[in-house]
Amino acid sequence: MDHAGAPVGAPSRPQTRNPVRAADLPNTVDLAWRERAGRVLPGGMYGHIKAPNYPEGFPQFYSRSSGSRVWDVDGNEAIDLMCSWGPMILGYNNPIIDDAYRSELANRGLAYGPSPKSVELAEKFVDLVEHADWAMFGKNGGDATTVATTIARAATGRSKVLKARRSYHGSTPWYTPGPAGITAEDRANIIEFTYNDLVSLEEAVALAGEDLAAIIITPHRHETENDQIAVDLAFARTIRKICDEKSAVLILDDVRSGFRVSVKGSWEPLGISPDLSCYSKCIANGYPLSAVAGIESLADAASSIYATGSFWYGSAEMAASIACLDAMVEMDATSVMKARGEQLMNGLREQAASHGFSVVVSGPPAMPFMRFTDGKPLDYAYIWSAEALRRGALFHPFHNWFLSTAHTSDDIDRALDASDGAFGYLSLRVG
Amino acid sequence: MDHAGAPVGAPSRPQTRNPVRAADLPNTVDLAWRERAGRVLPGGMYGHIKAPNYPEGFPQFYSRSSGSRVWDVDGNEAIDLMCSWGPMILGYNNPIIDDAYRSELANRGLAYGPSPKSVELAEKFVDLVEHADWAMFGKNGGDATTVATTIARAATGRSKVLKARRSYHGSTPWYTPGPAGITAEDRANIIEFTYNDLVSLEEAVALAGEDLAAIIITPHRHETENDQIAVDLAFARTIRKICDEKSAVLILDDVRSGFRVSVKGSWEPLGISPDLSCYSKCIANGYPLSAVAGIESLADAASSIYATGSFWYGSAEMAASIACLDAMVEMDATSVMKARGEQLMNGLREQAASHGFSVVVSGPPAMPFMRFTDGKPLDYAYIWSAEALRRGALFHPFHNWFLSTAHTSDDIDRALDASDGAFGYLSLRVG
Repeated sequence: MDHAGAPVGAPSRPQTRNPVRAADLPNTVDLAWRERAGRVLPGGMYGHIKAPNYPEGFPQFYSRSSGSRVWDVDGNEAIDLMCSWGPMILGYNNPIIDDAYRSELANRGLAYGPSPKSVELAEKFVDLVEHADWAMFGKNGGDATTVATTIARAATGRSKVLKARRSYHGSTPWYTPGPAGITAEDRANIIEFTYNDLVSLEEAVALAGEDLAAIIITPHRHETENDQIAVDLAFARTIRKICDEKSAVLILDDVRSGFRVSVKGSWEPLGISPDLSCYSKCIANGYPLSAVAGIESLADAASSIYATGSFWYGSAEMAASIACLDAMVEMDATSVMKARGEQLMNGLREQAASHGFSVVVSGPPAMPFMRFTDGKPLDYAYIWSAEALRRGALFHPFHNWFLSTAHTSDDIDRALDASDGAFGYLSLRVG
Repeated sequence: MDHAGAPVGAPSRPQTRNPVRAADLPNTVDLAWRERAGRVLPGGMYGHIKAPNYPEGFPQFYSRSSGSRVWDVDGNEAIDLMCSWGPMILGYNNPIIDDAYRSELANRGLAYGPSPKSVELAEKFVDLVEHADWAMFGKNGGDATTVATTIARAATGRSKVLKARRSYHGSTPWYTPGPAGITAEDRANIIEFTYNDLVSLEEAVALAGEDLAAIIITPHRHETENDQIAVDLAFARTIRKICDEKSAVLILDDVRSGFRVSVKGSWEPLGISPDLSCYSKCIANGYPLSAVAGIESLADAASSIYATGSFWYGSAEMAASIACLDAMVEMDATSVMKARGEQLMNGLREQAASHGFSVVVSGPPAMPFMRFTDGKPLDYAYIWSAEALRRGALFHPFHNWFLSTAHTSDDIDRALDASDGAFGYLSLRVG
């Protein structure tokens, strides 16, 4: 990678501005693949990692990942602060997790039916997650949130599900942020409130009336382009109280935060126990798997719904998940990520101040985010993240980032070197 | 496995009745796992492979699979006529497919973003599937059908989707066969018709009026507990004509039949071209993957919808799929499965007649099914399939079966030996 101008490998935080624009990354291989992709993939790529949504200079195609690093198809290396948008938590190609997967695959194959690993993994969830008396498994995070709301409706015989405005709960017609192809009926039973706003919550509860099946909520507020905000304790307690009083189901959507905040469930430190919780992303260090964990009194409803898939019994992904959960506990992964996250967050705050930018660095340390608060925040973020990537660190301009246990203190220093150069260039350009 | 009474390995079809009930399979390990499962999985197991839905003697937990065989946790071996409900098509643990997966995983890891494999796989779909100008990928079959209907709605700006009554299109709230936890609004934009019934189709079209977005249909009729019935050519042509006249989208749900009937798409032999087609199950020989393939004029709509998932870029599954599609073409897999399927179907017809049972054996040969038509059909099917399993062949009592290229002629003979013993016992019991 051409890190022209970036003091790569410097062990200490650079204190001086570095206003030089880094050289463009080589991208001829990426451009060739984009051209081929443009002929056979709609718009050249589907989903949330379409290059046109990203700053200029972000590649479309990646060729390799290892530890805390990713390489694009042109061989440009970056410290990955996105961790595949969460799934990677113990490092890419972690030999312990990959061996567990490969060994299960070799011994058992892609088997016909459920294997004992489904029991062992459910036992692991029950053991680790404070409120969990049982667990069941799917593939996508959206499978987990859909299964959870379906269980809540089956248990209560009611329809309405309350969710926070702009909270993401998966790529399903009743939750997608985009409106294309979505009908009014897809959302007819969803009532929105404002996160941390008691008045709006009470209005939503009143609107649901006797038909309140569930309140689904993320452990903290993590909307794109916004600061991450901790849940207000009184607000969380009120949700629990409303669900108790109305015999509705409290669903904690821990797909994004799960195991990065606490292995016991992200609201366990608050002393608030959900009825159902949804997991995916990091639970098998990147292998496709999701889970719903629930309390005993919802087991019958969970058993009554029709929820299944051809690949939902995949035993190798479950073996990987067991190994991943064990390794996270053994190394106290949340503490490791917390330390690295604080190092990154403090470093960014200092750099922004020294370069004269006003920013908010927010979020649990294992999933930090930085937002510019002056000038043109999103434009600044695009320029800054493009420049950081040119210097070898992959930060997302408008979505929260993720850390892993594979990020060493030196990795964070290198990422901060890149970000310092990016601040320097931004300062030159907009100053 | 204790195949007491079953002439295992006999190369020719047994012509004599074998009225002895086979010994129960050992099941102490399965029972022990069921007890553990009962404490941590709702109802002891989730989804479509819950043992309580199956004949007595069917195990809950499987330990291994290889080639055309599966073994339960007690070591009982069976020829698997379900192929994991379709995903297995080239044999469990097929070294070519597994090597492609493992090699991609080792070289590339569970990478951050899209890899060139997504382009190569889309090119493969465009190359093989007659109507396809592009493809995009998900994990579940239900992802593919949901993405397809969302694209249709985005393209047309309309809401109503027509589907055949009892046709299965995936485990999503708008399609599940079970009603638990499903709201009226989930189905508000679905209008049902009767498969192969032109009058009911026209009524459904009239009901949709100017709001007809799509007609989604399986290539043939394959409802549980029913004969499989080929689509009536005039019916298929009428669907195509209606979609053309109304500028609605024809979605072929090829999740179950895809690549078992034709590598060009299951309606290609009929000369009828869908606008979108949905694939999953066998496209990566068991690795979790699904696909939507579409025509050029729907590429913009496909690109406009919000459809994504943390695991939807998985490059190793795509490498497995490329290897799987190549291998299927190279060995002319559809012809291999057709020959084995006809061997099985003819054998079952002969056995039923010789034992005095009236049955219908139906379906494309690669996905056959047998239904008893006298006595108590479902009771008979339960007894027959339980007895066949005791003799080493896994047939489903009420869902169509699947064949693979790993099923040898000798495997089919062995399965027929098991089924002959099962007919013999059933005859003794109900005769």
